[in-house]
Amino acid sequence: MDIRDLYNEIDKYMNKEVTVSGWIRNHRKQKDFGFIDFSDGTDFRHLQIVYDNELDNFDEITKYLVGSAITATGMIIESSGKQPFEMKLKTIKLEGDCSADYPIQPKRHTNEFLRSVAYLRPRTNLFQAVFRVRSVAAQAIHEYFQSNNYIYVHTPLITTTDCEGSDQMFKLTTLNLNKLPMKDGIVDMTKDLFGKPAFVTGTGQLHGEAFAMAFKKIYTFGPTFRTENSNTKTHANEFWMIEPEIAFCDLNKLMDIEEEMLKYVVKYVLDKCNTEIEFFDKFVENGLKEKLTKLVESKFVRITHHDVVDILNKSKNKWEFTPSYDDDIAKEHEKYITEYYNGPVFITNWPKDIKAWYMRVNDDNETVAAVDLEVPGSGELIGGSQREERLEVLEELMKKHGVDRSKVEWYVNLRRFGGCYHAGFGLGFERLIMYLTGIENIRDVIPYPRTPNNCDY
Amino acid sequence: MDIRDLYNEIDKYMNKEVTVSGWIRNHRKQKDFGFIDFSDGTDFRHLQIVYDNELDNFDEITKYLVGSAITATGMIIESSGKQPFEMKLKTIKLEGDCSADYPIQPKRHTNEFLRSVAYLRPRTNLFQAVFRVRSVAAQAIHEYFQSNNYIYVHTPLITTTDCEGSDQMFKLTTLNLNKLPMKDGIVDMTKDLFGKPAFVTGTGQLHGEAFAMAFKKIYTFGPTFRTENSNTKTHANEFWMIEPEIAFCDLNKLMDIEEEMLKYVVKYVLDKCNTEIEFFDKFVENGLKEKLTKLVESKFVRITHHDVVDILNKSKNKWEFTPSYDDDIAKEHEKYITEYYNGPVFITNWPKDIKAWYMRVNDDNETVAAVDLEVPGSGELIGGSQREERLEVLEELMKKHGVDRSKVEWYVNLRRFGGCYHAGFGLGFERLIMYLTGIENIRDVIPYPRTPNNCDY
Repeated sequence: MDIRDLYNEIDKYMNKEVTVSGWIRNHRKQKDFGFIDFSDGTDFRHLQIVYDNELDNFDEITKYLVGSAITATGMIIESSGKQPFEMKLKTIKLEGDCSADYPIQPKRHTNEFLRSVAYLRPRTNLFQAVFRVRSVAAQAIHEYFQSNNYIYVHTPLITTTDCEGSDQMFKLTTLNLNKLPMKDGIVDMTKDLFGKPAFVTGTGQLHGEAFAMAFKKIYTFGPTFRTENSNTKTHANEFWMIEPEIAFCDLNKLMDIEEEMLKYVVKYVLDKCNTEIEFFDKFVENGLKEKLTKLVESKFVRITHHDVVDILNKSKNKWEFTPSYDDDIAKEHEKYITEYYNGPVFITNWPKDIKAWYMRVNDDNETVAAVDLEVPGSGELIGGSQREERLEVLEELMKKHGVDRSKVEWYVNLRRFGGCYHAGFGLGFERLIMYLTGIENIRDVIPYPRTPNNCDY
Repeated sequence: MDIRDLYNEIDKYMNKEVTVSGWIRNHRKQKDFGFIDFSDGTDFRHLQIVYDNELDNFDEITKYLVGSAITATGMIIESSGKQPFEMKLKTIKLEGDCSADYPIQPKRHTNEFLRSVAYLRPRTNLFQAVFRVRSVAAQAIHEYFQSNNYIYVHTPLITTTDCEGSDQMFKLTTLNLNKLPMKDGIVDMTKDLFGKPAFVTGTGQLHGEAFAMAFKKIYTFGPTFRTENSNTKTHANEFWMIEPEIAFCDLNKLMDIEEEMLKYVVKYVLDKCNTEIEFFDKFVENGLKEKLTKLVESKFVRITHHDVVDILNKSKNKWEFTPSYDDDIAKEHEKYITEYYNGPVFITNWPKDIKAWYMRVNDDNETVAAVDLEVPGSGELIGGSQREERLEVLEELMKKHGVDRSKVEWYVNLRRFGGCYHAGFGLGFERLIMYLTGIENIRDVIPYPRTPNNCDY
């Protein structure tokens, strides 16, 4: 049975014999008895297994090392210690022993060290908590969208469309790099599997929009790739994104959806991962639980980029970057504005020139109907926009941004075949997990992180 | 509002005024009135919108072309036609017109043609049904595993481990293929983003096993890549896989899980996509609904590969491929055996030499603890096995299969650090969707399929 079920239905199992399989996380032995701190990974909470020298194999059991896999049978009884209950051992089987050079000993390890044993770190309390929250948050996202009639679309990872600029995309090939087929002095890509250069994509948005024009509401949830050669706490070359697209949706409705979704996910995680959140609150980010609870109860502020700049200019802060109506806002500004409102802030209507080519131009012809959600402590969490649905305006934008129309003719056609006003957003899943856990380095919320010069396991 | 909600709660909306946004699928006009066959994509079922010449803009409305996006307000009333209800139009807004060269006209199109407009085909009845089933089945899978305490793990797509043989994996690079950095006559891969050759993976299994050794039960659900230059109905270069791994699980328990999961998913889809399944039953695979219902109610047969060969040999069939104790079974054999048992069949204990290097060797030293699930009409649906947990046996297997240990030392270490008997399986998601819908070509169950020389959109 799972320890999770034991905790969830303890009344059913109290004073009954049960069998559990899992791992020894810690082991304290005394002359006549011993305590095994046992975890099977199905719950953040462990089970204390108590045994004494009435067992025939007492001496052998005392030698079991931390990390070993065991199957234990015994009675669940009330505990005299801090635990709500414990197991009085009856029989035990060593399923797999553990070498003495096992790196995960019951002591504090740095996150840096644990990254170097990424395949073992989920056995620590910290990463048990992180990766359970990751799993539960993923489910929350699916449940939110599915219960609201969205269709989950698996947009392709492989693409031959390089409209984002192929410099930012990984090239994908089946050719032997040391024996490339040449033609007229350059590589003959017609010999590659797809007969032309192929990439792995950085977004499913364009493909998602096409499906939104058929299903009205769709979302993607899948891996995404960036080639950025950037070694920061927030950049990884492989990460997961959620990209909903909604037909007949304007910027205000988009904000409604973002707010409702985010609150749903945070509440879901608070409900299902209470133990984990309290652990993070204590050991990772003080005040985390209050921050999350507050978010669920708050009403997100909505303010234009223009008005944000006004507020920044009026403040007495000395800015490293001067706020400007025509420019992006800096990290220091994001921080200030969420503190100013003491809560999440939607910043809308951004200067046209600093945003992507597909965003809808506002009537002022200066700004686009884009919105970034800034949250206290983390800055930008979600970026979204209305997509330009007017054929002529889109054509003009593409020209201005140098987008090769021949590569996205199908996307442009969506405006000719029953197009409509529509909007969507992108939520970086790792950024969400960092917000939910207080973890500050993206490498610590991805099972096997990929960053420049780092692709182990 | 969504048409789906209208159908689900018709009592609430009957004789009320509602507003819907979506697309004109068909449009029949007569002298004094007209009928719009309207779909918003949230439900397979459409809404009939009726209008008459009492409307000021009657003449204009009659000109709306198939494919146009509209917002319509009107009273929901009982229908005199086949529909349970219809809308009596009050006001209508053309959100986006549709060019006369719109390829999706209300007539029968071949699947081949629709593949050539993959970005528009979700607007047809067939692909509305396919991609809704795909979305619902994905959710069923998540719900099954999450409700059984599994952790959803995002195993990496990018890998530098080429233990599967890099010939079968796409190479991933940020280097300019026309200006490759050279050193000693070969490409200098230290100059690439990860400092060494990188690939996109064909499986998350090995990475998943490490997490099963921490969480006991995990599953992956993500895209997978193969470079096969194969143009068949069942091969694609990009597809989605579900790969659960379970610690303390032997082959029998694995079969229990596979059977329970598959029945859960099929029942979930039957419940939530009844309309779609009836559509497939009528137009794609006669008897589909009965096939699926039967699967849910059946007890899957469990038989060894050896006994299957006996049955094949005893039959009076003339085999194209002679059944052999030492060999794989052919499609014709799969078909025969599911017909022989008139239901799903688990075939266990396969000859060691034809299976993968990580599968657990049985005591006979001839076979491995592997299991394939064969289902009527589709052949192999799931492949799984116990994984070799014994260090020495695994080392021997790796030697025999020529696996470079230095690339998977961490995986081998899992046997040194509290390893235990464990098992897992791989379910090709597209194969499942084909089974659920009766669709015979994998290109028609993937939003934007990627196959050799075919990577459009």
